[in-house]
Amino acid sequence: MKGAIRYSLYLVMGSQDCRGRDPVRVLDQAIDGGITLFQFREKNSGLTLRETVSLGERLRSLCRERNIPFIVNDRADLALLLDADGLHVGQDDLPVRQARRLIGPHRLLGVSAETVEEAEQALREGADYLGVGPIYATATKPDAGKPIGPGAIAEIRQRLSSPLPIVGIGGIDVAGVAEVIRAGADGVAVVSAIAGKPDPRKAAVELRQAVERAAGAAPGPAGFDPR
Amino acid sequence: MKGAIRYSLYLVMGSQDCRGRDPVRVLDQAIDGGITLFQFREKNSGLTLRETVSLGERLRSLCRERNIPFIVNDRADLALLLDADGLHVGQDDLPVRQARRLIGPHRLLGVSAETVEEAEQALREGADYLGVGPIYATATKPDAGKPIGPGAIAEIRQRLSSPLPIVGIGGIDVAGVAEVIRAGADGVAVVSAIAGKPDPRKAAVELRQAVERAAGAAPGPAGFDPR
Repeated sequence: MKGAIRYSLYLVMGSQDCRGRDPVRVLDQAIDGGITLFQFREKNSGLTLRETVSLGERLRSLCRERNIPFIVNDRADLALLLDADGLHVGQDDLPVRQARRLIGPHRLLGVSAETVEEAEQALREGADYLGVGPIYATATKPDAGKPIGPGAIAEIRQRLSSPLPIVGIGGIDVAGVAEVIRAGADGVAVVSAIAGKPDPRKAAVELRQAVERAAGAAPGPAGFDPR
Repeated sequence: MKGAIRYSLYLVMGSQDCRGRDPVRVLDQAIDGGITLFQFREKNSGLTLRETVSLGERLRSLCRERNIPFIVNDRADLALLLDADGLHVGQDDLPVRQARRLIGPHRLLGVSAETVEEAEQALREGADYLGVGPIYATATKPDAGKPIGPGAIAEIRQRLSSPLPIVGIGGIDVAGVAEVIRAGADGVAVVSAIAGKPDPRKAAVELRQAVERAAGAAPGPAGFDPR
């Protein structure tokens, strides 16, 4: 699985992000529009864990059908029981080394990082990719810190002792994509820029085009040299 | 581990229950006082998961030193990474069958049940013991339902198709112990009746004595015939 991952457009979403629509339907439209990766992040939605498991099973099935890697946020137990392709943890969540031990060597492990130090530690402890952010201001995650800007991606990209895929996250819309990709990100992760839109498919199409344009037109992953 | 479990006095606790005291110190005193089982239940305390893992490691070490089985509430991933002796799940938490699959056959699996139907399903899906309640009214768990009274224990005890250990939980203090044990419980589970008291050791001593007196004096686990 790990080798096949494309980070271009990463949708992060739970029922709280879908404006009352069925998350399975929203995800299906987002896949139609060209997302390359999906993270199930159910937070403060009022669903019980048992309901979260049910919804997770439906989203997981859809990802399997449509060949989109399915990542679970925070809970390694949920990742295991849904047979997810990966787990994503933040700096306040399970320690990376312990998360790795729980999910085994083959599942993807994503880690949120704001600084070179956090990125370096995540790398050392077994992360497969980094979610760097919040790049811009965002209303989706009230506990997110102050925006760190695309410059943080460039800095991590340059100073990390060994290459890791990086996705930028936090307040990224079509207009912000180019800057994030040019800073060296392999892709962008979004929540409301797809799940909060009236037409998630169209939103995904536009974001994906913006990523491809920026990646084709500038240095960044395409020009990245893993020495 | 399973064979060695004594259910007489089961402390359920997280930092939110300790009135600002170090939970490790409160647990130590409770063990001095005679608890036989401990469940780490960190809920709405404001600790991040990473802080919860740290606290859990300290509580887990103490339980290991003092030979008290260590059970984790709700999160199977936390139970696995702390190498807990067991996991306890409620009706809204991980489905019992999936929880069992995650923790393996050897760890203890406790399940909350209010009715014979819930108890029977838990039994069928792999529970090792039942937490039946809330027996009395309780302020500790705001989402607990209406008190079901000790009669629910008697009913589950009589109608369950195969015997399972039962602990009563919810608002049980020294005065309530006898009724719960006489209804057929193997023990009582408490939160504030120990963790909320100025002297957790003394509170545990009194509860344990009440359990032993009731168990010695009346039918219940002592008179229980597993036909």
